[in-house]
Amino acid sequence: MSGRSALESYQKGEGWWQTEISQIKKNEVNIRGYKMEDLIGNISYGQMLYLLLCGDILDEKKAKLFESVLVAGADHGPRAPSIAAGRMAATCGISFNSAVATGINLLGDSHGGATEKGMKLLYETWEEARESGKDLYQVIDSKLDDMLSKKEKLPGIGHQLHDDDPRVNRLYELAEPMAAEKEISGVYLDIAEQYRRLLAEKKKRSITMNIDGVAAAIQCEIGLPAEAAKGIFALSRGMGIAAHAFEEMQTGVLVKGPCPNDEELVKYTGVENRKLSGGEEVR
Amino acid sequence: MSGRSALESYQKGEGWWQTEISQIKKNEVNIRGYKMEDLIGNISYGQMLYLLLCGDILDEKKAKLFESVLVAGADHGPRAPSIAAGRMAATCGISFNSAVATGINLLGDSHGGATEKGMKLLYETWEEARESGKDLYQVIDSKLDDMLSKKEKLPGIGHQLHDDDPRVNRLYELAEPMAAEKEISGVYLDIAEQYRRLLAEKKKRSITMNIDGVAAAIQCEIGLPAEAAKGIFALSRGMGIAAHAFEEMQTGVLVKGPCPNDEELVKYTGVENRKLSGGEEVR
Amino acid sequence: MSGRSALESYQKGEGWWQTEISQIKKNEVNIRGYKMEDLIGNISYGQMLYLLLCGDILDEKKAKLFESVLVAGADHGPRAPSIAAGRMAATCGISFNSAVATGINLLGDSHGGATEKGMKLLYETWEEARESGKDLYQVIDSKLDDMLSKKEKLPGIGHQLHDDDPRVNRLYELAEPMAAEKEISGVYLDIAEQYRRLLAEKKKRSITMNIDGVAAAIQCEIGLPAEAAKGIFALSRGMGIAAHAFEEMQTGVLVKGPCPNDEELVKYTGVENRKLSGGEEVR
Amino acid sequence: MSGRSALESYQKGEGWWQTEISQIKKNEVNIRGYKMEDLIGNISYGQMLYLLLCGDILDEKKAKLFESVLVAGADHGPRAPSIAAGRMAATCGISFNSAVATGINLLGDSHGGATEKGMKLLYETWEEARESGKDLYQVIDSKLDDMLSKKEKLPGIGHQLHDDDPRVNRLYELAEPMAAEKEISGVYLDIAEQYRRLLAEKKKRSITMNIDGVAAAIQCEIGLPAEAAKGIFALSRGMGIAAHAFEEMQTGVLVKGPCPNDEELVKYTGVENRKLSGGEEVR
Repeated sequence: MSGRSALESYQKGEGWWQTEISQIKKNEVNIRGYKMEDLIGNISYGQMLYLLLCGDILDEKKAKLFESVLVAGADHGPRAPSIAAGRMAATCGISFNSAVATGINLLGDSHGGATEKGMKLLYETWEEARESGKDLYQVIDSKLDDMLSKKEKLPGIGHQLHDDDPRVNRLYELAEPMAAEKEISGVYLDIAEQYRRLLAEKKKRSITMNIDGVAAAIQCEIGLPAEAAKGIFALSRGMGIAAHAFEEMQTGVLVKGPCPNDEELVKYTGVENRKLSGGEEVR
Repeated sequence: MSGRSALESYQKGEGWWQTEISQIKKNEVNIRGYKMEDLIGNISYGQMLYLLLCGDILDEKKAKLFESVLVAGADHGPRAPSIAAGRMAATCGISFNSAVATGINLLGDSHGGATEKGMKLLYETWEEARESGKDLYQVIDSKLDDMLSKKEKLPGIGHQLHDDDPRVNRLYELAEPMAAEKEISGVYLDIAEQYRRLLAEKKKRSITMNIDGVAAAIQCEIGLPAEAAKGIFALSRGMGIAAHAFEEMQTGVLVKGPCPNDEELVKYTGVENRKLSGGEEVR
Repeated sequence: MSGRSALESYQKGEGWWQTEISQIKKNEVNIRGYKMEDLIGNISYGQMLYLLLCGDILDEKKAKLFESVLVAGADHGPRAPSIAAGRMAATCGISFNSAVATGINLLGDSHGGATEKGMKLLYETWEEARESGKDLYQVIDSKLDDMLSKKEKLPGIGHQLHDDDPRVNRLYELAEPMAAEKEISGVYLDIAEQYRRLLAEKKKRSITMNIDGVAAAIQCEIGLPAEAAKGIFALSRGMGIAAHAFEEMQTGVLVKGPCPNDEELVKYTGVENRKLSGGEEVR
Repeated sequence: MSGRSALESYQKGEGWWQTEISQIKKNEVNIRGYKMEDLIGNISYGQMLYLLLCGDILDEKKAKLFESVLVAGADHGPRAPSIAAGRMAATCGISFNSAVATGINLLGDSHGGATEKGMKLLYETWEEARESGKDLYQVIDSKLDDMLSKKEKLPGIGHQLHDDDPRVNRLYELAEPMAAEKEISGVYLDIAEQYRRLLAEKKKRSITMNIDGVAAAIQCEIGLPAEAAKGIFALSRGMGIAAHAFEEMQTGVLVKGPCPNDEELVKYTGVENRKLSGGEEVR
């Protein structure tokens, strides 16, 4: 479909709903050209997600690496707003899927969204080096200087709580031997690490990769599009949201708010004791 | 947490957010008592979801069977309202995760929700037979008569489009040998099949199991709670929603509605040409 | 549209999207038969909502009473889960409308949903008295006994925090003179009050109407359908959700969870120190 | 609250949930310093929304103008994706409020979102003229040239269907006399009109203001913040979403997709007949 209007494309003979993903007929469900019955039982969750998004079957080693990322992001406890919102929703008498949707609705630019930004930077850096013929590390250095001068944040770096995140270490432990064995290119892992190392050098302090950063590098290694990252994380963290919402449902508590009714936690700081006089107006 | 008020439980010394699922400390993420770094790379998506929901690691064969169900439900094309809503959302300029949430929000009682109802019926039937000491098939017969007399629909039976659904056949093909090998009990597959067979007999016509029905039986076989079914399906169909929303995003079309602007598709059937006279009132 | 399949209705010549609400043509927007330009500036928000839902223009006094209900439910502070979820969403980097949707997604059966249940009970009670010719108060008495024997909760009664809710008192103050002047029938206000009074008598303790209860009575008085109540409350509380989410956005805080990271507030109560041995299985 | 971490602010003694909007105590609900019982019955929906968002009571004329904008945007029929998504959701067996939330979730940057962009441009233009001391029309001219050179779209201009939108004309009819009477400044209506006129001149063709454009100008006239626009439109279009979802619920149709199952409407354009061979890989 080309152009920006669905109506125009339709008038030119395209379908209103046009898709390369699936074809549904009576007693036939085909996904990206494969019969669904050939996929069921033969490919894993990670492979199915990749097939749906990208059109091809990921080999088993890469698929396992992809699932490692999905598993790693699944839960970060009830203080994550996505988890908390799902738990509260579960106490409010709505359909369970809607509680899951509530949590997923929160996984935006600032809540897991650094993976997308990281992937864009990694792809862009590699593209720029390839197209310009410049040395990769020089490209990284100059892009980082550029970001710092614009006060932009390097995505995938630092964490509010962890400074030696066991999830990050473990994902490297899984990805690095694959790069050494050339099962993945290793290019994006390398670029990400250079950005981190250079930033630490420039800032003259220790700086750690966070889980969004390593997830970005791995997802680039297996060829996922950056723009799909938030949807992928939705299905990773979605596991935790579902489990926490389910746990809350089991308690039978009704309409649970974010915290106890405690002056220290909930403070009113606005004006007090106003009266309607009829002549009010704002400006 | 007992009782219906979170505040009461908290005043008795329980945490406001109390969970058996995960424990997050500085540089530690523990899930159901396991270190996250022990899980990453060692368990699959299906095992992680099961662990989060149920507290234990599913063995590999059962986990594979579970993932088969997740794969089978992943997509049914853009005419499924969940997929269509996700696709439309993707054209409206919201965060990608919110487009995924939009689709998942639709997976309620009538859209995949038969799995939960089916699981409840299967668990209940087995429980009743065990507790009463009655013959299982007699219990099924009498429960079915009861449902028919109340005009209740048997969940997991029949499909608008398919009468020989390849997904259903394939899931049976995977589950039945496991029952024969006692890797699963086979009890719930058997109960589901008896319900279908008996209903066909009573109705004197051929009746097919649908994908919700076989998913219900398999999810009972591996011990998932019925009430979690809608959340599980959210993560299964969520794959298709993410992929379709992503495809729509790539076209760059803006604000795409459900169908072309065609008289036959969109009809106004209300009153015409009214005027405000000031004296209007409803009843 | 009759029957349960949209496809069947369409094949019989109905539109796929068939509506009595609005008709959109080039340079024409008609709502329930009125030209939109005749409505804009001539009817209030409450009248427009009523017109869209019910097809007629509410007279000004009733419309003002309806808006009183919408205003009364607009906000109950950040400890209401709908408000909290909207506020948290606003810190996660999603579209502002999606933050509002997040909060509204929580306004289910247990969070404002008592209005719908209350309206059903009030309509049903009146219907039953009219159809049976029985004395209204006897019908109420016997229905209440029936509910108590089934351990059902009377909707719209009692509040976790308030026992003399100023919103409830004020709404009565507005509605009662209208009943006295026969601008509304007063029937549903009366039925609601009888239920409350009788329950207090039977329980031998003071019992107060809550805001859901009085909202139910007023919305019956002006002829709104019970099943629309959750949508109406969505637009009432939606004001508070929007304002709170907006306030949170202005602070610039990122990814704000439900409460501080405090042991007392967030407790892990599950098993500790498990190891993957390979032989795990659930049951 | 200052800075970007809620935890830091809390440690400095601020509340975790800190608000200037509402204060809830036993038998007290205060909004922006007013007792709720003083507001109920005395202020309209539009005034309440403004008070919650901005902290002050809008005078009655401005409030009426604001409600005109809310009424004008309430519905654009089932081909609007927000309305369609709400209608489909209503057939899927979820809570009614969740169907409303589904529709509202779609009202992003591209679906009504031009109002926010328009308001930002109008405020920015006025600010720039005031601060620089330059002639307002020169500022507009140079900003428009700048936008055109960057291929940016002027927000609030043009419509897919209407070229003489009756809603737009009517809103001008209401706003212009207020500007003439100095009940509003008229500055933003003027700036918006200059942008439109100049663009038509430069493009040498007739160009019309759309409803987002006139809504932007009016909302600036009454002092609403640009960043709140998507939340405001959520409550305007939310009326139509609720009514359409309610209408769909009444039909009893289950799981209704976006269009009939028609080859012309739903087209598969991907690869066909692939087989899993075990060696598949993506790149």
